[in-house]
Amino acid sequence: MYSARLARITEAMRLSSISQLLVSAPASVFYLTGKWIHPGERMLALLIRANGDMLLFANRLFALSGATDIPLCEYDDTDDCIKLLSQALQPGKIGIDKTWPSLFTIRLMEARNDLTPVVGSHCVDDARLCKDESELRLMRESSLKNDQTMLEVIRKLQCGMKETDVAACYEQISASLGSSRPSFSPLICFGKNCAEPHHDTDRSVLLRGDSVILDVGLTWKDYCSDMTRTVFMGTPTDEQKRVYDIVCAANEAGRKTVRPGIPLKEVDRAARKVIEDAGYGKYFIHRTGHGIGLEVHEFPDVSMTSEVIAKPGMVFSVEPGIYLPGKFGVRVEDLVAVTPDGCETLNAAPRELIAL
Amino acid sequence: MYSARLARITEAMRLSSISQLLVSAPASVFYLTGKWIHPGERMLALLIRANGDMLLFANRLFALSGATDIPLCEYDDTDDCIKLLSQALQPGKIGIDKTWPSLFTIRLMEARNDLTPVVGSHCVDDARLCKDESELRLMRESSLKNDQTMLEVIRKLQCGMKETDVAACYEQISASLGSSRPSFSPLICFGKNCAEPHHDTDRSVLLRGDSVILDVGLTWKDYCSDMTRTVFMGTPTDEQKRVYDIVCAANEAGRKTVRPGIPLKEVDRAARKVIEDAGYGKYFIHRTGHGIGLEVHEFPDVSMTSEVIAKPGMVFSVEPGIYLPGKFGVRVEDLVAVTPDGCETLNAAPRELIAL
Repeated sequence: MYSARLARITEAMRLSSISQLLVSAPASVFYLTGKWIHPGERMLALLIRANGDMLLFANRLFALSGATDIPLCEYDDTDDCIKLLSQALQPGKIGIDKTWPSLFTIRLMEARNDLTPVVGSHCVDDARLCKDESELRLMRESSLKNDQTMLEVIRKLQCGMKETDVAACYEQISASLGSSRPSFSPLICFGKNCAEPHHDTDRSVLLRGDSVILDVGLTWKDYCSDMTRTVFMGTPTDEQKRVYDIVCAANEAGRKTVRPGIPLKEVDRAARKVIEDAGYGKYFIHRTGHGIGLEVHEFPDVSMTSEVIAKPGMVFSVEPGIYLPGKFGVRVEDLVAVTPDGCETLNAAPRELIAL
Repeated sequence: MYSARLARITEAMRLSSISQLLVSAPASVFYLTGKWIHPGERMLALLIRANGDMLLFANRLFALSGATDIPLCEYDDTDDCIKLLSQALQPGKIGIDKTWPSLFTIRLMEARNDLTPVVGSHCVDDARLCKDESELRLMRESSLKNDQTMLEVIRKLQCGMKETDVAACYEQISASLGSSRPSFSPLICFGKNCAEPHHDTDRSVLLRGDSVILDVGLTWKDYCSDMTRTVFMGTPTDEQKRVYDIVCAANEAGRKTVRPGIPLKEVDRAARKVIEDAGYGKYFIHRTGHGIGLEVHEFPDVSMTSEVIAKPGMVFSVEPGIYLPGKFGVRVEDLVAVTPDGCETLNAAPRELIAL
């Protein structure tokens, strides 16, 4: 499995004329080694050469000696790790992980002015893009557990709860179903907070008449789920009902567009068109979705400008929303996996309007 | 308060000959604006010019318009944010935040080959280094709540619990004391796992005879605590007792060294010497401590090579440990704040050996 993954990456390096690549994102290192290493502020880099040779630079703290077959260059906190790394590099182009802290890139350029840094993480991201069967099985299981948790959380909602209470409730139920951790901190919004797509879950209190956005995901055997449902406390107003129906229609239109060969911007276009045609275009203020897998946000974007072509095995979110400042907001999100002739929706939690 | 902080930063920029600086770490942006912005994979940059002018580049999703007095350059997911940023920069040296994802640094260099990137975050880190009185008050409160949580968790320890159960217990108790979130995922280790300083908390089961490392911290009004205690299930062996006493003595020796004017490497030296003199030097395999404040790991290191000089208001951890592979491990960690004539230990949880 690992050698097939490495072969896909070295082929992508060849196509990009990158003969040496530094992989540093923990999920990408896991994808190639089966080891999770969370380096904190320390330097982590898996060097891949054009011929497939690898060399892993990691702090001795992570105790990798004997734990991996990959050749290791371990260092201590008092070593000059950039010097060790620079000694292993050839002059010329060097592919760098998009998320590598700039400290290391700048120091490496200062140590070796014969290196030209280019962003190289697409070589690994492209390989991670299409999940194999074993990955798809785990992603289905992860979303199934997320569905179960969502339904239990909705059952427990009542006026007077704080957003943080609902988040804690999600974390507790997902843990009881065997998830090692949420895939991100639960985003829980009540009422006007729903109009801010990036509201931080806080101590706001749930009131009758509020919309409730539950944007939640868990981790199951290293694979992430991510789903959003919006419910209402009490009978929704006509405007709330109208907006809810438009967002559901946009979600469905987006998902129905997905099939191999379609550029992802068409998925965004289909969802956005439903909202624009209903007159709410300026209140849908983010992309339609994002890739997901070992990480909750992976390449690619599902946005107006994404030229990425859907291929079987790709998994991404479809999550249109309408945000009415000072009033309320609605978002409905599902994960889809591209199949040979269309797509499979990984979430089964109902999308019918729920009024509690 | 913000203008005093900005003045310290522009003075540091002047001393480093940096006339333009990009600040991107969320805690540094908060330190200067009072706003937490967690950009995910999107670009966030607060440009500071030598004259103190600021310009904040942020995705429109974060709804900052009207929420801050700082001039804003907002962009959408479909905009070329690097182009917007590059248009605001002067040729020459540009200070870059050490943690800014390399994607942005490389793209900026590609857009503007008249820019020379240097690591510039020390200008902000130096300002954040010495806490003012209001910050120290919150750090004391944070550590006090961490002490209380630690004691309650130790009271609940019993054989048969999993490491993840203990972590969940910590999170629940700290939340009940009003902490919005842990300052890091609780590091709980049982028995042999204690010999790996970076062991990931897992489903290992607590057995009689195990050492238990509890390395935990919480967030209180944006400020972090961080403390480690090691306890034993049942009567410790002679070796466990001996190692525990050595680590406590090293912790105390480190803390007793702290006073204004001392290089932090002397703090490391004092703690390390106790462990080396007892014959366990090669089993203390990490630095003695790290700065802490808005983030759980801040500049500076307390390590063998740290030339940073202690000044009143600095807060850092003193956390020596001994790790015996395949057997057990002990770490004892406290936070200290440098005072005009020595230091104040922020943690009051007992360091006497606890056998349960």
